[in-house]
Amino acid sequence: MTAPIPPLLLVIFGATGDLTRRKLLPALGALHARGELPSPFVILGVARDPHPDDAAFRDIARASLSQLGDAAVHYQSIGAGSPADFTRIADDIAALEREHGLSGNRVFYLALPPQGFVETVEGLAAAGLHQSAGFTRIVVEKPFGHDLESSQALNRRLHQYFDESQIFRIDHYLGKETVRNLMVFRFANPVFETQWNRDRIAHVEISVAEADGVGTRAAYYDRAGAVRDMVQNHLTQLLCHVAMEPPATFDAEAIRDEKLKVLRSMRRVTPRDALLAQYAGGSVDDTAVPGYLDEPGVKPGSTTETFAAIDVHIDNWRWHGVPFVLRTGKRLRRRSTRIVVSFRPAPVRLFTGLPGCDVGPDKLTIFIQPDEGFSLTFSVKEPGEHIRVREQQLGFKYREAFGPLADAYETLLADVMQGDHTLFVRSDWVERSWYLYAPLLEAPPAPVPYRPGSWGPDAEP
Amino acid sequence: MTAPIPPLLLVIFGATGDLTRRKLLPALGALHARGELPSPFVILGVARDPHPDDAAFRDIARASLSQLGDAAVHYQSIGAGSPADFTRIADDIAALEREHGLSGNRVFYLALPPQGFVETVEGLAAAGLHQSAGFTRIVVEKPFGHDLESSQALNRRLHQYFDESQIFRIDHYLGKETVRNLMVFRFANPVFETQWNRDRIAHVEISVAEADGVGTRAAYYDRAGAVRDMVQNHLTQLLCHVAMEPPATFDAEAIRDEKLKVLRSMRRVTPRDALLAQYAGGSVDDTAVPGYLDEPGVKPGSTTETFAAIDVHIDNWRWHGVPFVLRTGKRLRRRSTRIVVSFRPAPVRLFTGLPGCDVGPDKLTIFIQPDEGFSLTFSVKEPGEHIRVREQQLGFKYREAFGPLADAYETLLADVMQGDHTLFVRSDWVERSWYLYAPLLEAPPAPVPYRPGSWGPDAEP
Repeated sequence: MTAPIPPLLLVIFGATGDLTRRKLLPALGALHARGELPSPFVILGVARDPHPDDAAFRDIARASLSQLGDAAVHYQSIGAGSPADFTRIADDIAALEREHGLSGNRVFYLALPPQGFVETVEGLAAAGLHQSAGFTRIVVEKPFGHDLESSQALNRRLHQYFDESQIFRIDHYLGKETVRNLMVFRFANPVFETQWNRDRIAHVEISVAEADGVGTRAAYYDRAGAVRDMVQNHLTQLLCHVAMEPPATFDAEAIRDEKLKVLRSMRRVTPRDALLAQYAGGSVDDTAVPGYLDEPGVKPGSTTETFAAIDVHIDNWRWHGVPFVLRTGKRLRRRSTRIVVSFRPAPVRLFTGLPGCDVGPDKLTIFIQPDEGFSLTFSVKEPGEHIRVREQQLGFKYREAFGPLADAYETLLADVMQGDHTLFVRSDWVERSWYLYAPLLEAPPAPVPYRPGSWGPDAEP
Repeated sequence: MTAPIPPLLLVIFGATGDLTRRKLLPALGALHARGELPSPFVILGVARDPHPDDAAFRDIARASLSQLGDAAVHYQSIGAGSPADFTRIADDIAALEREHGLSGNRVFYLALPPQGFVETVEGLAAAGLHQSAGFTRIVVEKPFGHDLESSQALNRRLHQYFDESQIFRIDHYLGKETVRNLMVFRFANPVFETQWNRDRIAHVEISVAEADGVGTRAAYYDRAGAVRDMVQNHLTQLLCHVAMEPPATFDAEAIRDEKLKVLRSMRRVTPRDALLAQYAGGSVDDTAVPGYLDEPGVKPGSTTETFAAIDVHIDNWRWHGVPFVLRTGKRLRRRSTRIVVSFRPAPVRLFTGLPGCDVGPDKLTIFIQPDEGFSLTFSVKEPGEHIRVREQQLGFKYREAFGPLADAYETLLADVMQGDHTLFVRSDWVERSWYLYAPLLEAPPAPVPYRPGSWGPDAEP
């Protein structure tokens, strides 16, 4: 998994879009600055826009890729996406590979909205681009379907032309350092791993709180909601990293097998397991903010949830009886992604009855964003003659130990180009996850309102 | 144990000595400043010196006790320590009690060298001062004997006049916040206590390193050595706090019973278990320092050890097979008292073979002095695309959380005056501890030399 990146052609569909500009090009720039891009390395940007030519796309790319050299950055319009358009792209690819002496290693990054997926996949296949003399890899972004059926249909379509080993489904949460460290943290530190079970852990909460509202994503979001947008994918992935058994080896399939095994032990999620909610209008820090129903692009009377708190049960030897709570929402108090593992309290409260000794049990908090790190909340004696117990933190911050962290896309792009599947989502995982949430998604309870800037409806005083 | 201090008379024998000036008076001053001394509260200083009168002793005491009021601080010479001298002290005490309206609560603090113990105890008893209309308590400082026989003789003498419940044997290590917190830390934090056993702990090291040489204490030290001066008392007390079972309740006898139980499970220490050493001359930080044999007051050719590293075995269900190493020495690199608990490594080294992943097992370090706190050494993934494991610390410093800590004598003096025996050494513990070290003390191996400013002979490169 630590092999150098081989020479290749990276084709970005959606080259003029937001994701390319904000994430992919800066990540490529960072990899280049660290000397991790191979030579030759050629980028071909593709989008509908007929106007950009190589020079115009280079302008977009220049901020991130100034040192890569103009020869390596190209643009081609896909036009209406007809078979002839894809053939033209194929010719272009062939010409660039000849020009740069590339041997046919290709990565197609589909930085596209979901409705562009299938036609691009089919266009690539029709033009013979699903295979080459080197490796051909395809990178797709979520959503991976809208429910079990559509995800199965999407996977069938992908598998018609591409082998699962060629497909890299991105969940950018998995590229975050703290998430990647979770496995090291668990399996290199017996001081925690030996307690990582139902005997010692009382409950686990995984939460992704966003301070922003739905913003400009209403058209997509209103059809999705928090369960589809966050829980089925990101939070359930985090759950798998927290709950999985140690893999036999550290290779991608061994790890992905263990993550799937967690889902195989997980109970299906019913409406009774879920609290759904929708943010009301109000003010946050003295600034008026609209309620979800007043956001531009939201259907009148929409019952889409912008908050979900879901009890998850994993019926295996390690976790039976330990509640996992997945919690996410928009317009919450603060942006914060964290995993809180609460350990069982002492069997005997030796200090109960002594004044000032009423503290909670030990907790391990894993901060995923912002300010990645760990903190172990534990009890100490307050200095002084009397026994008074106080909660204190043993803390560790990545930033303090290592400086600023790389963006998840740097890791993920490098992994795609190296062919390491560890941090990508496998088709069987996607489908199983949709299967688990289907009972809830088919009969979601009506959302209750919550105050913007609060921690959610269940946290109201 | 949190009762207020009742009105009492504190009689300090050795009132003009070092301990009184450096520790007892400042501790009393701090207690007074915090409003913890009762009213009335009267101090009678006693020493051989015929010169100080009340005024002169007040001068000594004033720096610490300026706000206590002159009426409360008195001095009386004990002269040669004849029966008549003790009778005079008794008269003085009676007069002071009448004058201040005290009801007979008395604490006798013997801040004396060991040769003064017995005659003071007998003098007090002969003058009828071993009992009164209130409580009578006697505080003694180490050494509590020189070996098993002398400690038994000393205890017999004390018990001739004083009940064990009246006797407070000071081990000032037990007054340190971090040592007092050890019980809270262990029994309020199941995240550690559930691992506090032979299944999870590989070994424990308890070390008291001193940077200073023998200094002005050679006359005493040369007859004692590191095992008598540090190991039999302080280090073995720390060992008991680390190794003890949870007491049934938090009262003094329940805790002292558990500490004795540790000693009852401990194997006797033989010469084979010990590495003894003596510091050589040399230079520390470019300053020449004499070897132990060249220190003033040390007998020519002395074989007294100034360093000891001792393997201790506790044969009970919790600890069988876990080595405890007690380590102490003078003229070592730095002043540092700490307990290092090393956990067993992961059963499978998932990351072995990956470059940069060769790190040690998790360790919990309890810093007792200086800079009291905890640190948990654990493994994290180094940020970056590759899996590289690095040791990091989850750290907690008392000073950062709570500000500067009180001196141990503040705690211990308050406990004596409140009648709380928890932090004091019981006679059966003293005798058992001497019994355990007797095989080593009767046939100590010849000390090897070590370099001043090093970490000891076994840490030499």
